[in-house]
Amino acid sequence: MSSKATRSHLGVCYYPEHWPEDVWAGDARRMVEVGLTHVRIAEFAWSRIEPRPGEIEFGWLDRAVEALAGAGLKIIMCTPTATPPKWLVDRMPDMLAVAADGAERRFGSRRHYDFSHAGYLEDARRITRAVAERFGQHASVVAWQTDNEYGCHETTVSYSEAARQAFAIWLRDKYGTVDALNAAWGNVFWSMELHDFDAVALPNLTVTEPNPAHVLDFRRFTSDQVVRFNRAQVDIIREFSPGRDITHNFMGAVTDFDHFDVAADLDVASWDSYPLGMLERFGRDEAWRNWYLRAGDPDFQAFHHDLYRGVGGGRMWVMEQQPGPVNWAAWNPAPHPGMVRLWTHEAFAHGAELVSYFRWRQAPFGQEQFHAGLNRPDGSTDVGAEEASVVAGELQAIADAQTVDDATQRSPVAMVVDYPSIWATEIQPQARGYSGLALTFQFYRALRRLGQSIDIVPPGADLTGYAVVVAPHLIMVGEAAAQAFAAADGQIVFGPRAGSRLETHQVPPKLPPGPLSKLLPLRVVRVESLRPGVRVATDDGGAVHHWFEHVEVTGDAKVRAAAHDGKPVWIEADRATYLAGWPDDAWLETVLADRLIAAGLAIVETGDDVRVRDHGALRTIVNYGPREADASRLIAAADEVLIGDADLGVAGVAIVRRAAAAGKAQTS
Amino acid sequence: MSSKATRSHLGVCYYPEHWPEDVWAGDARRMVEVGLTHVRIAEFAWSRIEPRPGEIEFGWLDRAVEALAGAGLKIIMCTPTATPPKWLVDRMPDMLAVAADGAERRFGSRRHYDFSHAGYLEDARRITRAVAERFGQHASVVAWQTDNEYGCHETTVSYSEAARQAFAIWLRDKYGTVDALNAAWGNVFWSMELHDFDAVALPNLTVTEPNPAHVLDFRRFTSDQVVRFNRAQVDIIREFSPGRDITHNFMGAVTDFDHFDVAADLDVASWDSYPLGMLERFGRDEAWRNWYLRAGDPDFQAFHHDLYRGVGGGRMWVMEQQPGPVNWAAWNPAPHPGMVRLWTHEAFAHGAELVSYFRWRQAPFGQEQFHAGLNRPDGSTDVGAEEASVVAGELQAIADAQTVDDATQRSPVAMVVDYPSIWATEIQPQARGYSGLALTFQFYRALRRLGQSIDIVPPGADLTGYAVVVAPHLIMVGEAAAQAFAAADGQIVFGPRAGSRLETHQVPPKLPPGPLSKLLPLRVVRVESLRPGVRVATDDGGAVHHWFEHVEVTGDAKVRAAAHDGKPVWIEADRATYLAGWPDDAWLETVLADRLIAAGLAIVETGDDVRVRDHGALRTIVNYGPREADASRLIAAADEVLIGDADLGVAGVAIVRRAAAAGKAQTS
Amino acid sequence: MSSKATRSHLGVCYYPEHWPEDVWAGDARRMVEVGLTHVRIAEFAWSRIEPRPGEIEFGWLDRAVEALAGAGLKIIMCTPTATPPKWLVDRMPDMLAVAADGAERRFGSRRHYDFSHAGYLEDARRITRAVAERFGQHASVVAWQTDNEYGCHETTVSYSEAARQAFAIWLRDKYGTVDALNAAWGNVFWSMELHDFDAVALPNLTVTEPNPAHVLDFRRFTSDQVVRFNRAQVDIIREFSPGRDITHNFMGAVTDFDHFDVAADLDVASWDSYPLGMLERFGRDEAWRNWYLRAGDPDFQAFHHDLYRGVGGGRMWVMEQQPGPVNWAAWNPAPHPGMVRLWTHEAFAHGAELVSYFRWRQAPFGQEQFHAGLNRPDGSTDVGAEEASVVAGELQAIADAQTVDDATQRSPVAMVVDYPSIWATEIQPQARGYSGLALTFQFYRALRRLGQSIDIVPPGADLTGYAVVVAPHLIMVGEAAAQAFAAADGQIVFGPRAGSRLETHQVPPKLPPGPLSKLLPLRVVRVESLRPGVRVATDDGGAVHHWFEHVEVTGDAKVRAAAHDGKPVWIEADRATYLAGWPDDAWLETVLADRLIAAGLAIVETGDDVRVRDHGALRTIVNYGPREADASRLIAAADEVLIGDADLGVAGVAIVRRAAAAGKAQTS
Repeated sequence: MSSKATRSHLGVCYYPEHWPEDVWAGDARRMVEVGLTHVRIAEFAWSRIEPRPGEIEFGWLDRAVEALAGAGLKIIMCTPTATPPKWLVDRMPDMLAVAADGAERRFGSRRHYDFSHAGYLEDARRITRAVAERFGQHASVVAWQTDNEYGCHETTVSYSEAARQAFAIWLRDKYGTVDALNAAWGNVFWSMELHDFDAVALPNLTVTEPNPAHVLDFRRFTSDQVVRFNRAQVDIIREFSPGRDITHNFMGAVTDFDHFDVAADLDVASWDSYPLGMLERFGRDEAWRNWYLRAGDPDFQAFHHDLYRGVGGGRMWVMEQQPGPVNWAAWNPAPHPGMVRLWTHEAFAHGAELVSYFRWRQAPFGQEQFHAGLNRPDGSTDVGAEEASVVAGELQAIADAQTVDDATQRSPVAMVVDYPSIWATEIQPQARGYSGLALTFQFYRALRRLGQSIDIVPPGADLTGYAVVVAPHLIMVGEAAAQAFAAADGQIVFGPRAGSRLETHQVPPKLPPGPLSKLLPLRVVRVESLRPGVRVATDDGGAVHHWFEHVEVTGDAKVRAAAHDGKPVWIEADRATYLAGWPDDAWLETVLADRLIAAGLAIVETGDDVRVRDHGALRTIVNYGPREADASRLIAAADEVLIGDADLGVAGVAIVRRAAAAGKAQTS
Repeated sequence: MSSKATRSHLGVCYYPEHWPEDVWAGDARRMVEVGLTHVRIAEFAWSRIEPRPGEIEFGWLDRAVEALAGAGLKIIMCTPTATPPKWLVDRMPDMLAVAADGAERRFGSRRHYDFSHAGYLEDARRITRAVAERFGQHASVVAWQTDNEYGCHETTVSYSEAARQAFAIWLRDKYGTVDALNAAWGNVFWSMELHDFDAVALPNLTVTEPNPAHVLDFRRFTSDQVVRFNRAQVDIIREFSPGRDITHNFMGAVTDFDHFDVAADLDVASWDSYPLGMLERFGRDEAWRNWYLRAGDPDFQAFHHDLYRGVGGGRMWVMEQQPGPVNWAAWNPAPHPGMVRLWTHEAFAHGAELVSYFRWRQAPFGQEQFHAGLNRPDGSTDVGAEEASVVAGELQAIADAQTVDDATQRSPVAMVVDYPSIWATEIQPQARGYSGLALTFQFYRALRRLGQSIDIVPPGADLTGYAVVVAPHLIMVGEAAAQAFAAADGQIVFGPRAGSRLETHQVPPKLPPGPLSKLLPLRVVRVESLRPGVRVATDDGGAVHHWFEHVEVTGDAKVRAAAHDGKPVWIEADRATYLAGWPDDAWLETVLADRLIAAGLAIVETGDDVRVRDHGALRTIVNYGPREADASRLIAAADEVLIGDADLGVAGVAIVRRAAAAGKAQTS
Repeated sequence: MSSKATRSHLGVCYYPEHWPEDVWAGDARRMVEVGLTHVRIAEFAWSRIEPRPGEIEFGWLDRAVEALAGAGLKIIMCTPTATPPKWLVDRMPDMLAVAADGAERRFGSRRHYDFSHAGYLEDARRITRAVAERFGQHASVVAWQTDNEYGCHETTVSYSEAARQAFAIWLRDKYGTVDALNAAWGNVFWSMELHDFDAVALPNLTVTEPNPAHVLDFRRFTSDQVVRFNRAQVDIIREFSPGRDITHNFMGAVTDFDHFDVAADLDVASWDSYPLGMLERFGRDEAWRNWYLRAGDPDFQAFHHDLYRGVGGGRMWVMEQQPGPVNWAAWNPAPHPGMVRLWTHEAFAHGAELVSYFRWRQAPFGQEQFHAGLNRPDGSTDVGAEEASVVAGELQAIADAQTVDDATQRSPVAMVVDYPSIWATEIQPQARGYSGLALTFQFYRALRRLGQSIDIVPPGADLTGYAVVVAPHLIMVGEAAAQAFAAADGQIVFGPRAGSRLETHQVPPKLPPGPLSKLLPLRVVRVESLRPGVRVATDDGGAVHHWFEHVEVTGDAKVRAAAHDGKPVWIEADRATYLAGWPDDAWLETVLADRLIAAGLAIVETGDDVRVRDHGALRTIVNYGPREADASRLIAAADEVLIGDADLGVAGVAIVRRAAAAGKAQTS
């Protein structure tokens, strides 16, 4: 995946087992005609690969691989571990995960397994080895996907006995003695002290809320179990299929495990992008959802592209791209005509190496009968295939302009995202609805509305060279993260609650921001959470809501904005900024614009609908709104327009080669 | 029940076991004084009939029967199987049904049994036989009721081990081989393939949604279990009590099993009519519920009268009629004065042979202490008894005018209702809140607002002779139904999603409307569901919402209305009409009025409050609104006013002998 | 606690086990400096007192006691039974309570025990005896608290097998024969008759609602189990620590058990007052919650002070007083500056002998990390300690003016509160959201807005001497209560549903108001419940909503207000008033003002924000509003202003010595 001609690839998800064998070759030929180069297969095929215990049947899959390879397609092979067959579940009924209410999560759909079950892990290894042995050396197999969508259907956290036992071992490994655990968790609080590691219980079904330290360690353990499960497959694939990329297809808005940790074992991070379906789950409000009904949230896709490019260490794919209406949201409209094209271009603009559509042909049976494919259930061509073809042609047209490798080029702005911090406020929000992900996304949107291109990095990443760093939600600040902030040479903006908990989930001895106190000479002496509709106005015309902290400035810092009673809200000390509350959208934009300008970056207001992304020499401009938009202020006179123009129609895309690109890139 | 003088009967539900024996004779005498002729008893009396295992005690019931019969009352005897006694449950704890969340549904109220439990079925047979043997030949026992309100409290579907085992057998009977089952369900989709019938699981507690084909067969199985349970009792009653009518008292808005199938074993269908209680569950919106607070929805009762007249093959009773406030809705107001009279007359207008009030005297204990009776707990006369008396007198007054047997007279309009199609969209709505029952009811209301009288029929019923047939919600179209539509000689109007699934719940190979393609030369190439508040306007001033289909016309059809982008919405081909979306109320009325007129039927706008029903020579007009209404446009100059007049007060009723009745009837 | 100088005491809750031993002495010294005299300890310390089975370790607690006593503090010692340690639960897993859905309520927080478990009761006795033996005779131990917050986290009702067995025994004791039980409950209703006491089931997981008589007895049993559990501890403490006060810290808005019954074994009732947290749970509506965001509901605290003063037979403490933001409400704002002072003065005005703040120092770990203390986690002084100091000084200033013992002085107005009546309408509301507590609170608020001081008493209490008695919600009226009403010499106002059920939960044979018929010559012949938004207007400009009764006047009574159709709503007979519906706020105030004036009491409209309480010679006036208030109409020219003045700022308090106090007191 390095030659310039093939930098941006199109693919598709295909399920040969769903179709008569005699259509495979024709399907493969038509994929190539559409302009696809990659095809992902075998994701859910365990019951066909091993219909009965130990009886492996690869004949059909051999023939499918040959049909696809024969047409010139590159194959992404999958391990089928997301859907263990019924006979396996019947042999090990306790391999099922257990919900927080104590109910088994049973066979009949997918992801019906417990990450901590030793027996299932062994079978997952066994089937992975079988597939890897069979296809690992095949010339057309260029990549592997492990399992499918870890965390989908909230399947990461399980309250099974297998989980409890594994958790006890994990805790012994971490703490050594049960006294150390009791001290770290503060178990004395309500006589919760344990006398033995094996006495540990899972934090569900408790009379009232469990100890947050207990839950936070349980969430860390849970995340580590995903890492362990994934690594077991990766190790086998590396043995039998060296030199191929290994990936996993992550989901949007899933934060149940630490994606950075899982991806550390992978070559590339991929994710499944369903703009319309996710709008229902993550849209700002009803008016917003109605406005972007057929487009998706203008920042949701970009956020995840940037997130997973960071998770993948610079390499990112879209493994499943929505091609039409889906089946799983509360309501499932059709995208605007042209929207599939837009989403695809946007993914490439954010560094995707591959965009793979889900799926080739709409299924006539099963749970996803209403999920569109590139083609309809009767085989006729659907809108998705038409738009994919257009993109394929356009990619050829701009291939020469792709002069810089996005994967290694830094953006001027970095955003620090920390999964454990998101867990910490899920566990102890102190304000109903306090979501670290939502706050992070609010910062991201504000930066995008100011025309910025953004990198997302984990805490502890090297921050030198970034003009601006934002850390919207960083509850726990470890040693490495503290050092990285200290070493950063740009502006740093911290959101509320930064450094408010130690790794043990205890309050820092000298109060928050704890480890950030050197950077931020202040002390948070009281916090309060506020009902919806209540706001604290600041003397610069802004406001915070939902969360408000009482801060004492302890050193050399400037109060840029204060509440009516004089309490500091926007505090600056040298190049570090702290916001002592949850900012309103408009005020957050004010604060960030101020800091971007201070850092020497150019800002441009994009409004609600239009978004821009600079990547290498190129600038990609998209219109998410249901009406035309004028993007002329985003295109300089000297820029070379490669695709589209400044008059963006609905679902409009413009791609320009920037005259000023070389200069701008130096900023970062 | 055939002589003219006794065509419309009044009855009451009575629980002698709730009262001292010395009041029975007096109660019976007063029933007759009120004008009642029928009395239903023994419905929940198992613990008195068999207080201890095997010790049958009929003495008290003998005496109760004699007290009632002695006063000249006709008795409807019940089997007591809806309330098995505690000692029986203690003997067979696994006879309890299991909820979807896996919880037992325990003793302590009623309907605490599993339809699939072989042991309970045996005991139900045993107690049925005991009662049938004892009272089957009694001269005053004129009819039987099996059990009570199948499906009430959502008791049809059970996730017990008994259900699972019975389901496995049912599947083996249906499919023969597990490969056939796997193919029909498309189990390959997510490796859900079964290796053995006994491996089948119930579709609850799955990680995410189960296979819709799996659920649909489970729902069919569930319905069949009700049929089996009911038939077991019917067979015994027929043996010991030949010549008596057998019925079951169905509920309103219950669709969990196929009522046509259950009623195939009965002589007459009866139902329990609670207009105010059901308004809370089924009312259109809050304003509607406030407006009809003391009347009930103006179409809910009529819909069920027509439905159960169809279910009963032309014969329908109201077994329980609300006589005052009830106890089980969220809020329980009193009916308008006169409303009990209105409901009673309306039932007879829709073909009821009997209207039986629930209950004689309000209970001072138990779950229904707040449920009014015809009399109060202290024995004093309540409003219900007064209004029943009025009706009794009025029935005598109009007896001579009842010239045509409603039960065999067809209405000009037929509506096709299919229970499995309702299940199909419950299982896979693709749009939150998509309800086949709601769509069906919307069509029914629109027809009624246009002054129509309607028959409700199952798919496959003979449709010849109907001027207009509507099929609002017919997802699956079997062979018989397709033939019936082909043979129909009137206008046919299909709602969206018609023919969109095969019996297997698979998408038709050539896309919807599948089996209806000959009648409807079109192809549904994409569907989308829309958020509340989003509508697709049509170029004739109408609109659809919630659901919108992208249709390609494939043959000789006229697009009567299209969306703004030209997509067809109202398509006509010959005498068949297809609506490619969920119509707004007003537009649906426009479309139906157009088709009614095309069929030569007269329409009249009745507005919100007034409703009219033609039956034989009579026309009954009722006012559901909380204000006076003018019904003069519904009464021709030549009509003979028998009861009331055109100035309808609140709860007003007018019954006229139509001059034009003979002519009008010929239309159908 | 009798000398004048020490009548109003301040205390604090302290957890020495949470802190290093070397800070204890300093903490104690600072407590005294703040002005605190009492300290409560050892509440949750079981895992430290008995770290392993049978190994009692009192050394640390001895040293903590000495540190506190050495500073001159009086100690309130606790039994630690609210938090049994994990090793105990592991030994008796069935000691856990069971939720209504059948799920265990597990270890990991607190209150994880079943009141009916014999084994746990034995262990609770054992640890109580250990602590009582050790500290019972200590000179500084002046009082005891049993357990902690019975009923918190809805832990009173358990559906365990232990509960079922104990319930069966309780029923046998109550009814003697199972026939008597069947008759009392009306079990014949749905064949629910039991053949044996051991066949009784708990009223959860039933198919539909269980028999209300069954549930009511289960709730009585449940309450009795709390009495039994508490008494077991009290008996031991009295043996080993004679002469000390024994209390329990009750909660606000908890009605799951009969507090009068539990407190019958105690010397004083205490409660835990969290004004801001409870506003979220109990506030009138969103606007109300926003307005009183930082103050709490103006009547909630007073209501509970008066309630628990009644529950405690005249003696009441606030054991836990909110000192700042808490952690457990949906949103947790900070109180207004001065609000902690206001709450403290208000408690004393309502007869508190002690106000004890929760807690000394905010915890850095555990579930309540966000719960403010008097001091911050780092040990620095927080707002709470500052305001407590102010109060301590003010208490000295007014000590001489405390001339009358509030605990024995009657208010002019009495309100009858009956826990079983609250249960009865929880069990069978007949109107969604019908809450006896809400109705009671509405009466209380109306009286307070009219400037009244109120006593709360149980049914059966002596009512002679009260100018006005209100009984807002008295479903069941026993013999003693009926006699007390008959003997009362003031005005009596009954809310709807009074006397509507017998002790068995049956309808009175001659209809409601049953036992009150002599006092109220009327008969309730029908009740109806009304949807939100529906009201029944009265001819005096008032209205009822939610609940409306059809009343027939049967004797010498005056209809003061009737509905539009003439149905009586406000009925007066001699000195008894009956309201046949749920009154609107304004109309209730009209009715009560009329009756207060009729009784010769002075009324004064206080508005939303200001409240007044007369106690002995003193009048305390407080401002709950977020703006200044003028209280001049509440201060007579001759009154002596001791604290504050008529211009009440936010959180303002004025305390005056009333010139007319002696005269006014005679009214009662």
